[in-house]
Amino acid sequence: MDIAYPPFDAARPDGENPSAHETLAPDGRLSPEKTYTIPARQGRAIRVQKGELLSVINRDGSQIGDFWAFVEGDCNEYLSMEHLRPTLRCISPHPGDALVTNRRRPILTLVEDTSPGVHDTLVASCDIHRYAQLGHQGYHDNCTDNLRMALAAIGLRPSSVPCPLNLWMNTPVVEGGAMEWRAPVSAAGDHVLFRAEMDAVVVISCCPMDLLPINGEDAQPRALEVMLHRIGGSITPRKTV
Amino acid sequence: MDIAYPPFDAARPDGENPSAHETLAPDGRLSPEKTYTIPARQGRAIRVQKGELLSVINRDGSQIGDFWAFVEGDCNEYLSMEHLRPTLRCISPHPGDALVTNRRRPILTLVEDTSPGVHDTLVASCDIHRYAQLGHQGYHDNCTDNLRMALAAIGLRPSSVPCPLNLWMNTPVVEGGAMEWRAPVSAAGDHVLFRAEMDAVVVISCCPMDLLPINGEDAQPRALEVMLHRIGGSITPRKTV
Repeated sequence: MDIAYPPFDAARPDGENPSAHETLAPDGRLSPEKTYTIPARQGRAIRVQKGELLSVINRDGSQIGDFWAFVEGDCNEYLSMEHLRPTLRCISPHPGDALVTNRRRPILTLVEDTSPGVHDTLVASCDIHRYAQLGHQGYHDNCTDNLRMALAAIGLRPSSVPCPLNLWMNTPVVEGGAMEWRAPVSAAGDHVLFRAEMDAVVVISCCPMDLLPINGEDAQPRALEVMLHRIGGSITPRKTV
Repeated sequence: MDIAYPPFDAARPDGENPSAHETLAPDGRLSPEKTYTIPARQGRAIRVQKGELLSVINRDGSQIGDFWAFVEGDCNEYLSMEHLRPTLRCISPHPGDALVTNRRRPILTLVEDTSPGVHDTLVASCDIHRYAQLGHQGYHDNCTDNLRMALAAIGLRPSSVPCPLNLWMNTPVVEGGAMEWRAPVSAAGDHVLFRAEMDAVVVISCCPMDLLPINGEDAQPRALEVMLHRIGGSITPRKTV
């Protein structure tokens, strides 16, 4: 595939998959306590209201999820990894941590994490350029396009592509600042649970990376599940940390 | 200072200092082989053409510089820390490394670094919200506004505020992913030298942080110097690595 370089448009996908028109719910508003599936290699947008809880379930255990959150009504303010790290004084969040925007306002709280807590905040979402560099020919599903399509599917356009919170992605910083690309350490059924601290639009992309082992040693992209929980409703996690 | 939350505008400063109207050169084009000073607490934009070399000199040794680069003619494509890290498979660059944009294209190469090579790619530029959280009352100069003003001073508007490359900032990742805020390890006269891989607009902000020791144990913001070098011209570094 030839890659042309017109002015960069954060909202325009470089290709297409069903993320562009299929939604979990027409306006991104899920019915509570119902399991929704985000298909492998695709992305979906979810609207959450302040106080609501959203769980993301790693059904098969090996799948990473690129995760974004935008302030409802203002896609220019979003969950920002580079603001999160100095706020936490840590490179990744733990249960109880407030997750902040590029104006350092809490947008979500990470309430619960049944996995060992290995998530990445350092790595951009994959894009056509990443797959081209890895030797792939032709269009490849990618998380950057999934974000763009999932937002477009509920009528939104981002003005930039923020660095995602990469749920379950195991790309540790090792000796000398080097990074490694490893398989996730999460188990089937692990979930993370977020509480919305303001009305927000969450986007989750089931990373389609199949050229590196970040989605498991078999490099097989799989689905993720999500569930919205009523304010004050009970959560029944598979296990607690 | 009250902080209001209208829609986030990446280009609009939250306050003002001379960065808004003072430039190193009217269009950001420096005369070659001439030392220019970026005043303490302020930012300046510099236009570089493909193949040109730009050195940034830590005159006093203790000053960190928030550093950005945008593609000439398209502020939506910029040097991106979250794309740089997976490209390098490392959390910070070393001499010889190409520094890539959010389309993973080399925009600059880090040619030379006379310092011990401690730079940060993890931390957002400071902003009014950061200083408010640290207890400061009223407006405080900040690198985010310096970026906005320095671009505006040469007629440009960014659509987002990218994570900067924080030259000489010593905020290491330690045990368990925690980060620490330490004084720089650079020495007076240290420089980094970049080669432009495409026409670009560089912005450097002399970080005005005076509430943490990142600009030295005395927390005293100071100036930085820059110099543009002719293509094929000789560079006479203070020392080599």
